[in-house]
Amino acid sequence: MDTIKISEMIKSLATLDYEGMYQTDFLLTWEKTVDEVMATFLVADILRGLRERNVTSRIFDSGLGISIFRDQSTRTRFSFASACNLLGLAVQDFDEGKSQVAHGETVRETANMVSFMADVIGIRDDMYIGKGNAYMRQVSAAVQAGYHEGVLEQRPTLVNLQCDIDHPTQSMADMLHLISHFGGADQLAGKRLAMTWAYSPSYGKPLSVPQGVIGLMTRFGMDVVLAHPEGYDVMPEVAAVAESNASDSGGRFTTTHDMAEAFEGADIVYPKSWAPFAAMEKRTDLFDEGDLDGIAALEKQLLAQNADHQDWTCSEALMTATHEGKGLYLHCLPADISGVSCEAGEVAAVVFDRYRVPLYKQASYKPYIIAAMILLSKLRHPADTLAALLEVGRRRMG
Amino acid sequence: MDTIKISEMIKSLATLDYEGMYQTDFLLTWEKTVDEVMATFLVADILRGLRERNVTSRIFDSGLGISIFRDQSTRTRFSFASACNLLGLAVQDFDEGKSQVAHGETVRETANMVSFMADVIGIRDDMYIGKGNAYMRQVSAAVQAGYHEGVLEQRPTLVNLQCDIDHPTQSMADMLHLISHFGGADQLAGKRLAMTWAYSPSYGKPLSVPQGVIGLMTRFGMDVVLAHPEGYDVMPEVAAVAESNASDSGGRFTTTHDMAEAFEGADIVYPKSWAPFAAMEKRTDLFDEGDLDGIAALEKQLLAQNADHQDWTCSEALMTATHEGKGLYLHCLPADISGVSCEAGEVAAVVFDRYRVPLYKQASYKPYIIAAMILLSKLRHPADTLAALLEVGRRRMG
Amino acid sequence: MDTIKISEMIKSLATLDYEGMYQTDFLLTWEKTVDEVMATFLVADILRGLRERNVTSRIFDSGLGISIFRDQSTRTRFSFASACNLLGLAVQDFDEGKSQVAHGETVRETANMVSFMADVIGIRDDMYIGKGNAYMRQVSAAVQAGYHEGVLEQRPTLVNLQCDIDHPTQSMADMLHLISHFGGADQLAGKRLAMTWAYSPSYGKPLSVPQGVIGLMTRFGMDVVLAHPEGYDVMPEVAAVAESNASDSGGRFTTTHDMAEAFEGADIVYPKSWAPFAAMEKRTDLFDEGDLDGIAALEKQLLAQNADHQDWTCSEALMTATHEGKGLYLHCLPADISGVSCEAGEVAAVVFDRYRVPLYKQASYKPYIIAAMILLSKLRHPADTLAALLEVGRRRMG
Repeated sequence: MDTIKISEMIKSLATLDYEGMYQTDFLLTWEKTVDEVMATFLVADILRGLRERNVTSRIFDSGLGISIFRDQSTRTRFSFASACNLLGLAVQDFDEGKSQVAHGETVRETANMVSFMADVIGIRDDMYIGKGNAYMRQVSAAVQAGYHEGVLEQRPTLVNLQCDIDHPTQSMADMLHLISHFGGADQLAGKRLAMTWAYSPSYGKPLSVPQGVIGLMTRFGMDVVLAHPEGYDVMPEVAAVAESNASDSGGRFTTTHDMAEAFEGADIVYPKSWAPFAAMEKRTDLFDEGDLDGIAALEKQLLAQNADHQDWTCSEALMTATHEGKGLYLHCLPADISGVSCEAGEVAAVVFDRYRVPLYKQASYKPYIIAAMILLSKLRHPADTLAALLEVGRRRMG
Repeated sequence: MDTIKISEMIKSLATLDYEGMYQTDFLLTWEKTVDEVMATFLVADILRGLRERNVTSRIFDSGLGISIFRDQSTRTRFSFASACNLLGLAVQDFDEGKSQVAHGETVRETANMVSFMADVIGIRDDMYIGKGNAYMRQVSAAVQAGYHEGVLEQRPTLVNLQCDIDHPTQSMADMLHLISHFGGADQLAGKRLAMTWAYSPSYGKPLSVPQGVIGLMTRFGMDVVLAHPEGYDVMPEVAAVAESNASDSGGRFTTTHDMAEAFEGADIVYPKSWAPFAAMEKRTDLFDEGDLDGIAALEKQLLAQNADHQDWTCSEALMTATHEGKGLYLHCLPADISGVSCEAGEVAAVVFDRYRVPLYKQASYKPYIIAAMILLSKLRHPADTLAALLEVGRRRMG
Repeated sequence: MDTIKISEMIKSLATLDYEGMYQTDFLLTWEKTVDEVMATFLVADILRGLRERNVTSRIFDSGLGISIFRDQSTRTRFSFASACNLLGLAVQDFDEGKSQVAHGETVRETANMVSFMADVIGIRDDMYIGKGNAYMRQVSAAVQAGYHEGVLEQRPTLVNLQCDIDHPTQSMADMLHLISHFGGADQLAGKRLAMTWAYSPSYGKPLSVPQGVIGLMTRFGMDVVLAHPEGYDVMPEVAAVAESNASDSGGRFTTTHDMAEAFEGADIVYPKSWAPFAAMEKRTDLFDEGDLDGIAALEKQLLAQNADHQDWTCSEALMTATHEGKGLYLHCLPADISGVSCEAGEVAAVVFDRYRVPLYKQASYKPYIIAAMILLSKLRHPADTLAALLEVGRRRMG
């Protein structure tokens, strides 16, 4: 990317209204305005352009990014660490297993205790319906209060790295991939995107990916269809958001129980396993009751239910039915690839292999998206700062 | 804090005699002169002032802070990481579980092997009487020798992050909180501070907090009373230090077995559980003998003994008896709060809740205290360097 | 080291032909030319000189060094972290235990997913014959492809932190120690080095140390003798490399089953336990077959076999037979010291103690060697960049 192109993007950024992002969290994409979402894409692209040109984008001389992961993660952990590093923040992992949290301290207390030098907090908490996003809001309120009361010298902003409701860093990276692939956000209106369930031999994959996708992609005039077997509904609140978005943006949001119907003529397909919302809600109740036998029984039942839908798989035949046979295949990775990572799974090996490079590119946007979310929440005048970085042109390496 | 105020503090710093801190460790507060202790408070305040004004205090362009934690910790781990980050050091955790230390290598060898690029080493080792501080001195001697012999290019200095004898980063942060609360170190003479035992359902909390408090607070002319049930004595050597300090500073150090007596008219109260010194010494002996049954039996006996003193709790009634009913409540956190984190514990929920903000502020001084300890041990001319940082005024963020 | 000396080394560097190192991995020393090996030593010395003079050698303003350790490690972990820090990179550990790798994703995918901001990847994988180096080449091919395809903005280069074949960061650090001890690489021709097996009560120590030593030290005209009991052969491919090297460099490579013969007149001795290559190959096969009982039986057999050779120990008597009784004792540490870390082991305590300082110095070169490997693979014009660092002279600390 040349300097003129980067400079133009910075000028475009300056025309958007995104002041509301300053000192605020990024928890759900639908809490952000279209301008704010677009500003995030622009900043992500600008940061990538600077890096390509070996120009530093360190806006922090020192400072901490705190990561709180409530289950195992490689990719998200590395994406967050990469984003923090790009901006000059050091990462400090808050591993609850290593902590004294179990001794009965409150979220409010812990949130303040780890935040004395925290500029940003990234949280992934997607295990139980009704818990993850709520926990993030508790942490946010706690550090807001701490800042207000003079306990904290700065207000750390939060980035939702995946919760029970949304997965904004994923859906935004997916979207930036689409923008790049189709040559601009203005090229997306009318494009058909099939967010479909697909069979996996594993159990309980989070709902946040399909929910994030229908909650975001419906804002750009796209024709979004959500497909899944009966009983695999997503959270009704998020489906309602998608409907409302589609209506506002001049797009469409429909649902079907027929995978082939969804793929028919699709420009983009996103076949991916998830657990039924109702079952996940039941699991949360069982968890709250401490009913481990009940959880085990539910798991068994869900695996059996999944097995009834092994025909929901992204086959070559289905891909042929997409728009000109060239629909863009998306996945958040890692995928369950039939004959590779499992006997039968979400996608045929031949399909996955053909889309490997675009899939990796899709993933490559995530660190820049996270960095953009952080940057927009921390800087008072992002466009000015970015313009200065470009002009000074200090080298990142060498 | 405005620039003039920071500048004045730097000028005050320059009048103190603290050259002895250069290239030396911070292991026990009573090994430091009053000037050295005061210099640490001043530097902590200056660093906080710089951060408030978004001025960088990076004195390291690169370098490592090594943390060695021999038991689990969140707050201290984050405080050390925050302090290192504030000064420009990257943290590298030395986790003995992940290491080859068990293969029979010596402290001397390990200390050198992890220190080739180490500027500072923070150690927390508070589990066994007679062990933690001794271990720190072994590490210190090892890196001093390594530096002398040309193995190490720099002499990493040590910060005691809690040992069996003292908890200097805690007591110094507590003290800076008092200085800030009462409007200056010169306002503390004659103030009554009650360091009292309090009931907790858990077992074996370290003695280093009460010992650190009586070992430091007695140096400023305060009227320090140590209260605990019979049998919960602290280390006699530290009690002797407190007595000697009080005599030198024109203050007072007394002990009592009556919690109410200690609270009577107190300006500051610090009710906190700890284990009896004699029992902890016995536990160390059992540990050395590998007598796990003996340790389990001792634990059972101590929990029963604790349970006899459930009336030692920081109730609202006791708080009413403090000076004008407004004594300042301190705790190192996390506290055992009755009805919140346990059935009956160190403090009533109503008391804890009322002091939540000051408690969090108390904790917030710790990263700055640690950073000040590091800075004073690494810089040859701290006042000059700080003055230059203020004058140049390079932004930490943005 | 004074500025003039550093400046001279930079000028020497400029005369060498090492352009081939740019954007390439450091996997085996014998894949590098003599000029490239010498450039690595020079850069390591220059970096050490800069640090001694408190001059920064940060060539990265931001960026990540990824570490992948497939077994436990302290020293190598710290050496890699130190090297990265010296150059300005933050370290991100890729802990496979914490990751989703087990879910069936490929090396190709993972390598790309962790590398979006990776400048360098350090890998230690020495557990199974035929696996470690092969894994590194898989990772290398994956990131090379990712860079080529536009997935990665930079091509992370790999550093072999120990594999089944070679341990280049160890052997290069050992060699730099020899260069420093004997006053220059040109002083080494004709020197006799005894790389000998020694008894250890533990089992299955990697072959990469002796293999790395004979594969490197034979390139400088030295008289290298490899000694071990019958059956403890190293990989035949590496022995062939050593022979060929010796022939090219005008040195000598011989083998013997007599420890005393190897020590006789030796200028340098390196007594160290390792497992027989054939047994390690068998172990790999058993591992591939999932035959845990077979592995346990093999371990028992190897320990019994080891015990037949307890006389292979670096005694004072053997040391007396070295050149003028003053042969330089080397070890990669930690050593099995008789009467200290085990009943009977690789070396007598009296010998180890006498060589403690040189042993620690030997180890101290490793972070600089790793940093040199990174620097030479990342900079297009290393000599120019180093000259600029020296001239600008920005302080690392203070």
